[in-house]
Amino acid sequence: MSTADLTIDLGALAQNWRALDAMSRAETGAVVKANGYGLGVERVAKVLAQAGARRFFVAVAEEGAALRQALGPGPEINVFSGHMEGDTALIRDHALVPMLNSIDQMLRHVEALPGHAFGVQLDSGMNRLGMEPAEWAALRDIALGQGPRLIMSHLACADEPDHPMNAQQLRVFKEMTADLDVPLSLASTGGILLGPAYHFDVTRPGIGVYGGRPFAEARPVVHLDVPVIQIRELEPGETVGYGNTWGAQRRTRLATIAAGYGDGLIRAMGPRAQVFADGRRCPVVGRVSMDLITVDITDLDHDPADVQLLGADQGVDDLADAAGTIGYEILTSLGARHARRFIE
Amino acid sequence: MSTADLTIDLGALAQNWRALDAMSRAETGAVVKANGYGLGVERVAKVLAQAGARRFFVAVAEEGAALRQALGPGPEINVFSGHMEGDTALIRDHALVPMLNSIDQMLRHVEALPGHAFGVQLDSGMNRLGMEPAEWAALRDIALGQGPRLIMSHLACADEPDHPMNAQQLRVFKEMTADLDVPLSLASTGGILLGPAYHFDVTRPGIGVYGGRPFAEARPVVHLDVPVIQIRELEPGETVGYGNTWGAQRRTRLATIAAGYGDGLIRAMGPRAQVFADGRRCPVVGRVSMDLITVDITDLDHDPADVQLLGADQGVDDLADAAGTIGYEILTSLGARHARRFIE
Repeated sequence: MSTADLTIDLGALAQNWRALDAMSRAETGAVVKANGYGLGVERVAKVLAQAGARRFFVAVAEEGAALRQALGPGPEINVFSGHMEGDTALIRDHALVPMLNSIDQMLRHVEALPGHAFGVQLDSGMNRLGMEPAEWAALRDIALGQGPRLIMSHLACADEPDHPMNAQQLRVFKEMTADLDVPLSLASTGGILLGPAYHFDVTRPGIGVYGGRPFAEARPVVHLDVPVIQIRELEPGETVGYGNTWGAQRRTRLATIAAGYGDGLIRAMGPRAQVFADGRRCPVVGRVSMDLITVDITDLDHDPADVQLLGADQGVDDLADAAGTIGYEILTSLGARHARRFIE
Repeated sequence: MSTADLTIDLGALAQNWRALDAMSRAETGAVVKANGYGLGVERVAKVLAQAGARRFFVAVAEEGAALRQALGPGPEINVFSGHMEGDTALIRDHALVPMLNSIDQMLRHVEALPGHAFGVQLDSGMNRLGMEPAEWAALRDIALGQGPRLIMSHLACADEPDHPMNAQQLRVFKEMTADLDVPLSLASTGGILLGPAYHFDVTRPGIGVYGGRPFAEARPVVHLDVPVIQIRELEPGETVGYGNTWGAQRRTRLATIAAGYGDGLIRAMGPRAQVFADGRRCPVVGRVSMDLITVDITDLDHDPADVQLLGADQGVDDLADAAGTIGYEILTSLGARHARRFIE
């Protein structure tokens, strides 16, 4: 067995969802886009449905179709990218609810699928997806006449509770939805943590469910253990890996492990990353290769058969810090070559 | 259709392999690890076999098993990680040739599969995989008695032709293999370009086949076109995306496209990346999100239906430069959400 072992703790996942659910009086949905943040949407969504989620969010209609197959009829599946050209059959056949982002999408939807459920995404200042205030003002009465299932917007800076953008987007969202009798949604994980003013009727936690910041109390969901291929001794001055970027300062025991950026372990993490063996940290040395990483195990008192990259000692955010990115990207990058094991 | 369209030009792939093949008198193999550098090993390997490759290289035994299923009996499949614990059945059942990296692996192999083909990987200075000179000296006569099919090593700095490490590794490899009557291999793409002294009996091109540096004449193999979801107008001062990291300096036309780091487009590329619309460059603005990227299209004279991230105007190395990485990682990160299309 020379591939890494990726263990996904579905019990921790469900606990994280329940903890986020308990933080608001709103209905709690679940964001399962990008293949359930890289973990496997089928298993992830089923566990969250068992935990009580009745409303799921995906990025594109193709994901919605796969999710419908996993969940069967019943749960509502909202598609953030709305109703794009070519999406009609998927939306119809899998009973998806597109979150319409523009007048173009609204026209496409009502022409192609009159009477079919939809929601509306508003832009409250992030300038990424959703109708602008002026666009919405022009379309609002027509849209409301068609009975939208949900009206939502997305916060740009919810991970920074003190950022003035949060209150500003809240104010714009309230202005755009004043006096509407339609379920409203503004908060993903960060928004839930901002407090009740941001909760409205439906929350949409994503990263917190999967164990990442800003949900500090999240239980770790992913554990990644990588087998050691080979251990060697280096004399001081010997160099390691591509470009000779690391040289031994002392006699060094070096382990080569069977994973690399070809497994989604971001190459940029090289100079700052570490792995753990029985709870003791071992620094990564030299460049991360496609299939291999080299680790300084000099300070261990044994030769490990495998080392841990993700787990109790090091979470997705720790590894993200080493790679100069965010936990989300660590998760969605987890590669296909890992052997995946789900525990409940 | 709201997912990106990844087109893989198998004709260009075969041409790149033939061009690298023509650069040496050695037998030319092909490295197809990490799912054929992320492109799809089954199609990639079949095309390379048609082009004439008879020897393939993968990272782990699991990949070898998948490759054998694609290619059928005949071609030799070498496994860089050697014979690890748990690999025996895969090696036996799929007629794989493990490149043994240590005395431990040699013992495991001859005990578990006496008479089964193997090769030897030597460490000539990279300190990543392969037997050290002292280890090899102790084992050499025993190994040779078992009839290895190939003896190889790997260069750490082949992308830098003037790096003294190249000549040093060449010298060590020659010393370790002096007077052997076994096929030898030292060169991957970079080594082929270093010239005949590095070619020996078998070359192992990887990145050059897939269209990447250092093979400057490589034809581009991957084309990535991403649909536009929505276009909006911004007033000067409006901000875009997570963390408000980008603000409009002028009236700006902004396109939101349906791909992000959840599709393997490395998040770090944000501040420096660009996309192309009908050959005109449009800078990425704001942070790359999981499923979305925002692009400044103010200078276009039309509203594009899609934009290109990889293709004739921008290759994997250009995008790698923007992301602070190498073309290899751009390729192996290409995500599962892209619709893949192979052309010949």
